[in-house]
Amino acid sequence: MTKPQLTALAQSLPASVPFVGPEAQERQMGRPFVARLGANESAFGPSPKAIKAMQEAAHQVWMYGDPESHDLRNALAHHHDVAPANIMVGEGIDGLLGLLVRLYVGTGDAVVTSAGAYPTFNYHVAGFGGVLHTVPYKGDHEDPDALLAKAAEVGAKLIYIANPDNPMGSWHDAATMQDMIDRLPDGCMLVLDEAYVDLAPDGTAPRIDPAYDNVLRMRTFSKAHGMAGARVGYAIGAAEVISGFNKVRNHFGMSRISQAGAFAALADQDWLHHIRSEVAASRAHITQIATDNGLTALPSATNFVTIDCGRDGEFARLVLSELVAAGIFVRMPFVAPQDRCIRVGCGPRDLIDAFAAALPKALTQAHEKLR
Amino acid sequence: MTKPQLTALAQSLPASVPFVGPEAQERQMGRPFVARLGANESAFGPSPKAIKAMQEAAHQVWMYGDPESHDLRNALAHHHDVAPANIMVGEGIDGLLGLLVRLYVGTGDAVVTSAGAYPTFNYHVAGFGGVLHTVPYKGDHEDPDALLAKAAEVGAKLIYIANPDNPMGSWHDAATMQDMIDRLPDGCMLVLDEAYVDLAPDGTAPRIDPAYDNVLRMRTFSKAHGMAGARVGYAIGAAEVISGFNKVRNHFGMSRISQAGAFAALADQDWLHHIRSEVAASRAHITQIATDNGLTALPSATNFVTIDCGRDGEFARLVLSELVAAGIFVRMPFVAPQDRCIRVGCGPRDLIDAFAAALPKALTQAHEKLR
Repeated sequence: MTKPQLTALAQSLPASVPFVGPEAQERQMGRPFVARLGANESAFGPSPKAIKAMQEAAHQVWMYGDPESHDLRNALAHHHDVAPANIMVGEGIDGLLGLLVRLYVGTGDAVVTSAGAYPTFNYHVAGFGGVLHTVPYKGDHEDPDALLAKAAEVGAKLIYIANPDNPMGSWHDAATMQDMIDRLPDGCMLVLDEAYVDLAPDGTAPRIDPAYDNVLRMRTFSKAHGMAGARVGYAIGAAEVISGFNKVRNHFGMSRISQAGAFAALADQDWLHHIRSEVAASRAHITQIATDNGLTALPSATNFVTIDCGRDGEFARLVLSELVAAGIFVRMPFVAPQDRCIRVGCGPRDLIDAFAAALPKALTQAHEKLR
Repeated sequence: MTKPQLTALAQSLPASVPFVGPEAQERQMGRPFVARLGANESAFGPSPKAIKAMQEAAHQVWMYGDPESHDLRNALAHHHDVAPANIMVGEGIDGLLGLLVRLYVGTGDAVVTSAGAYPTFNYHVAGFGGVLHTVPYKGDHEDPDALLAKAAEVGAKLIYIANPDNPMGSWHDAATMQDMIDRLPDGCMLVLDEAYVDLAPDGTAPRIDPAYDNVLRMRTFSKAHGMAGARVGYAIGAAEVISGFNKVRNHFGMSRISQAGAFAALADQDWLHHIRSEVAASRAHITQIATDNGLTALPSATNFVTIDCGRDGEFARLVLSELVAAGIFVRMPFVAPQDRCIRVGCGPRDLIDAFAAALPKALTQAHEKLR
């Protein structure tokens, strides 16, 4: 008897996970991490008002969430000075990226990103049969000129860029991004992932203008708002583009509790300002720790600091594994030459102190193993 | 300048929603429903222990949920006496159905379901370019023989059946379902949606046997467990089939709060037994109300009762709209001849009393409009 067969495309895909979760590492080690600093989460936590809203919404969880995320979407529209029709709420940026790729990328269609940029985007492109073309980082920055040139060369349907960038923490100013938008090739959509923009200097985000039907901005409550576990992201774009999500999304997919939490988090801009200041202080602290250990911390506009370990990828991977073994959960960029770095999340002082305490020995042991 | 173009498939899809949410109806009416009984939710609510677990998890929401849903998956495996590799947790059955269709159904592939069965499944089939073939209900039941015959005729990749059935509330016994499994055509996967099976008589679910690589069972925390707003469903099947989800799923898509809630809900089997008894009493109450009004309630193995309004679809739609106007949120089957019915959810006595109070006038007005 023949068993049911996957589609040819599905057969070609690996059963992989873009990132192994820290819980899986903890289970493997048999003990919890001392400091969870590797997933660009906000260990500062969300607004207490958001926590309260989610706790209250738990009593209402017998009801499906509003499939239109009406209240949250209207609040976001007001916040960004656009119409609700310019906003689509979804299950994190990850979920929205998957839907976007599905809408625009068919088998064999070209997509452009940077070598070493967000693996989950690449996972979605592969998952829908798209062909990924990459350009290298320029120094520690994604390279708008190279991305545009490659997109024109291959006739890309989508260009992905994160500003600020993950995993390097670097950023371009609004003028550079607006220039990139203005030079997009015909028929090409810019996916501008601004997951970290709430933590960037003023003047990082170009003006949001839904008149552009070739730009989709991605935002999230996972980073500055500290609600990664709630899965709330949103896209901002032209109404016609936003409406496209209604063709393919899981309409009742948004948790009712998460909607309530995000609504309360957005309303608490004081907390966001508090977090911006906490993150800035934590970045400075991590930078000082790097300097104290003879390493170079890269400038960051995010809630993490990428530290150049000063040697090659093999060395940085050893440093990383020593830190992990010491109970410090950190991650690193996957692709050379960025893989000379490790990436350390901001967080409350005790967590960063734990990293500081573990780093010298990790460096010593990594040096010894490569002697 | 050419704007970015959707794929040909995406262009062909409507920007539709399988169901309008009750919140949208409330916004349109300008007032909330008195009784929310239309979405097969459990107005009895979830286990208090699940609520408590979610409230505690709200403090941890800065962390992504475990992408493997390890604890929940292991508990489910233990509960069903299978291995964790036989379980995939996802964002509700809706989300899992979408992934399943994506894995197995390519453009032009045949899929079989019953005319009037679950619209969201049909939405996913259309969304991936599949071709839906339907067979009629036999009386008020889905018809396994007709589904199997149609699948063999068209070479279907998937057959969808819900047992117990939504929207009719009817069910087949385990022997009938096992017989259907044993007669599946070569290369055809049975998608056995058991969303309501926790509320059905013992002997409704065939034995779970992961040796079958052509059967996928779908379960949920949205119905008996009362957690529709948390979005937790799961699939049970052969390890190889389950592993396929890892090719395409949103690995970090599960809310951390929802995972914690479902884990606690599963552990509270006393609450589940309590709900079974509450739902049975509520079904009897709704049935009595139907009888008192000269209508026929169909037997139900679910948390809703489908009431035959005794005339045609036009009449039932009028009854429905009168009830909705009176603040009673109910829905109805979409397809003739089942559309002679309305579907009323079980719930606490005060909500059912509100339905009972509104029904006589709704029937009178519907009769008058058709006079």
